[in-house]
Amino acid sequence: MKLNIAILAGDGIGPEVTGEAVKVLKAIATAGGHDFTFTEALIGGVAITAEGTPLPQRTIDISLAADAVLLGAVGDNKFNSLTPDKRPEAGLLAIRQHLGGFANLRPCLAFSALSNNSVLKPEVIEGVDILFVRELLGGLYFGQPRSWDKETGLAINTMVYTKPEVERVAHIGFQLAQKRKKKLTQVDKANVLECSQLWRATVEELKPQYPDVTVEHQLVDSMAILLMNQPKTYDVVLTENLFGDILSDESGVITGSLGMLPSATIGGKVNLYEPVHGSAPDIAGQGKANPLGAILTAAMVLRHSAGLEQEALAIEKAVNAVLAQGHRTADIAKGGATANTSTTQMGQYVLDEL
Amino acid sequence: MKLNIAILAGDGIGPEVTGEAVKVLKAIATAGGHDFTFTEALIGGVAITAEGTPLPQRTIDISLAADAVLLGAVGDNKFNSLTPDKRPEAGLLAIRQHLGGFANLRPCLAFSALSNNSVLKPEVIEGVDILFVRELLGGLYFGQPRSWDKETGLAINTMVYTKPEVERVAHIGFQLAQKRKKKLTQVDKANVLECSQLWRATVEELKPQYPDVTVEHQLVDSMAILLMNQPKTYDVVLTENLFGDILSDESGVITGSLGMLPSATIGGKVNLYEPVHGSAPDIAGQGKANPLGAILTAAMVLRHSAGLEQEALAIEKAVNAVLAQGHRTADIAKGGATANTSTTQMGQYVLDEL
Ligand SMILES: CC(C)[C@H](C(=O)O)[C@@H](O)C(=O)O
Ligand SMILES: CC(C)[C@H](C(=O)O)[C@@H](O)C(=O)O
Repeated sequence: MKLNIAILAGDGIGPEVTGEAVKVLKAIATAGGHDFTFTEALIGGVAITAEGTPLPQRTIDISLAADAVLLGAVGDNKFNSLTPDKRPEAGLLAIRQHLGGFANLRPCLAFSALSNNSVLKPEVIEGVDILFVRELLGGLYFGQPRSWDKETGLAINTMVYTKPEVERVAHIGFQLAQKRKKKLTQVDKANVLECSQLWRATVEELKPQYPDVTVEHQLVDSMAILLMNQPKTYDVVLTENLFGDILSDESGVITGSLGMLPSATIGGKVNLYEPVHGSAPDIAGQGKANPLGAILTAAMVLRHSAGLEQEALAIEKAVNAVLAQGHRTADIAKGGATANTSTTQMGQYVLDEL
Repeated sequence: MKLNIAILAGDGIGPEVTGEAVKVLKAIATAGGHDFTFTEALIGGVAITAEGTPLPQRTIDISLAADAVLLGAVGDNKFNSLTPDKRPEAGLLAIRQHLGGFANLRPCLAFSALSNNSVLKPEVIEGVDILFVRELLGGLYFGQPRSWDKETGLAINTMVYTKPEVERVAHIGFQLAQKRKKKLTQVDKANVLECSQLWRATVEELKPQYPDVTVEHQLVDSMAILLMNQPKTYDVVLTENLFGDILSDESGVITGSLGMLPSATIGGKVNLYEPVHGSAPDIAGQGKANPLGAILTAAMVLRHSAGLEQEALAIEKAVNAVLAQGHRTADIAKGGATANTSTTQMGQYVLDEL
């Protein structure tokens, strides 16, 4: 099969981890006789430096022409003093809008080889398998008006949702729950926010269409503690943009490191794939970054953009095997393990397994 | 000393836990020859039922005339279909506004007797001592415009902060850090939100006034994972209303139960004291609720509204002792322990210790 993948490596550790993910995709292509092409383009801080904007038009064009977009990470402390609209992150938010994917899928799996790696007790995380469905194009991230007036000292952001925006992502949540353990946990702050009341009412309205799915509503504050206290009880967790950002990062506690978490954004013109971790400027360029989040993200490319489920599973199995062999980058060298593997070595171990 | 305390027991387990806290305050008064008076008033669901409004004028008057307000909990599933402005929680938000306290202090201490009670490994939580300073009168909770139009399906909330609002609570954060381990962690989402940029810039501006305090900024998504991975590294955590709501609830993972967490809101006309936990309608009236959060909240009344620091410490010591003796309500009966104590028994054990 033919697949044209845009590579937006971005800032910090982005290029390193994306490099390993691309190697894995190439190996899958060679083994299966597939024709994968890769086109690189700039985003984030590197794009600001090179072209004065975090999302050059060329990057938009390449991305929209691709079958899938694989992004590394975006963010650079160098630009911390800029307002949100000028920062590297603005490029990320803009490409999300251009591609149109509204359902950001963030799986959180407890890897048995890493069960001692988490600050949570092994019996709490054993077998955890949660899929976050985070709405990605609405809420406080994009709501207008938004401003910070340095003269008056007034700052405003707007959380806004429409019913169709909630419906389309809720349908995806329900459908994914049907294919999994048939439980949907919808998270909001409906005791305070009108937006959350819209979310809750909309999910309730759709419920009869999915009679096999059990629906539960949780407040975001409660969920922040429940997610740690009883992660095994969750299946699909559906929520708005910012709550999804916070809770999915928190779920990194379960795997022991954000460096293990992949994501895929579906529902738009072109699917967007990005590991959950950030650009980690403190370790960039040192070969210390964990490429497994990016490699697992590559597996999601195969699953959601190429229908290559077996190949996706093979990558996930290879990652498990490599972890079982005791290979550890710094972020997952806990619970007695020592950091014994660099970014490229870790990538190579996965290739060897495949 | 004379202290006039308004008791707003509220909904669910509110009356049960507040009852135990009042007994403890009475014991302290008797022992020290203090003159504490208690005036009860309605708030939340019980106020809606009795008077058709979640915050009757009489409750406002009693609260404003008091030296301190001790609140139980607010919230009742019976009213779930009402819009935010008509729900029990509206009474809580309104009393917060009337009293004017903007700095909500939420200490999170790891109790050594409960070190096996948390899903976190004992070595991770040992000695944790965090003080959350949550801004309580701004942000999404109160911002205008806010609406949910069921016809058009559009919902809006507004996050808004002014520089003076950030300054006044930041000063409290800095001053508390000075009295503690001199570290202030300010949490925001400055890579996306203008409001967060105001927060970050304001804290930076005040920093030179507190040269002995080390300031660190964290993004709220990162903080959600760091708070679990390295809770010992935090001292004072300063943040806006909603982020504080989420993170302080999450910190209940450290004590093992929300039922252990107290809070005090200072800076306004009258200080407001409330345990962090909710009304827990599922266990209300069954004698299962943990009164220790409310009892520790009573200790905060003595500390912040009466200057009775020794007496506050005595209560905290008594709570530790009672836990060390193995008394457990259901929420803290984990790690091999069984629930062997009712709400009133637990209160009595604390009284016996005092
Ligand atoms: C970098 C940032 C803008 C982004 C977000 O908040 O969406 C990141 O935290 C994520 O979760 O993908
Ligand atoms: C009941 C609710 C409105 C309240 C809040 O969100 O402030 C509660 O969660 C709290 O933390 O005190």
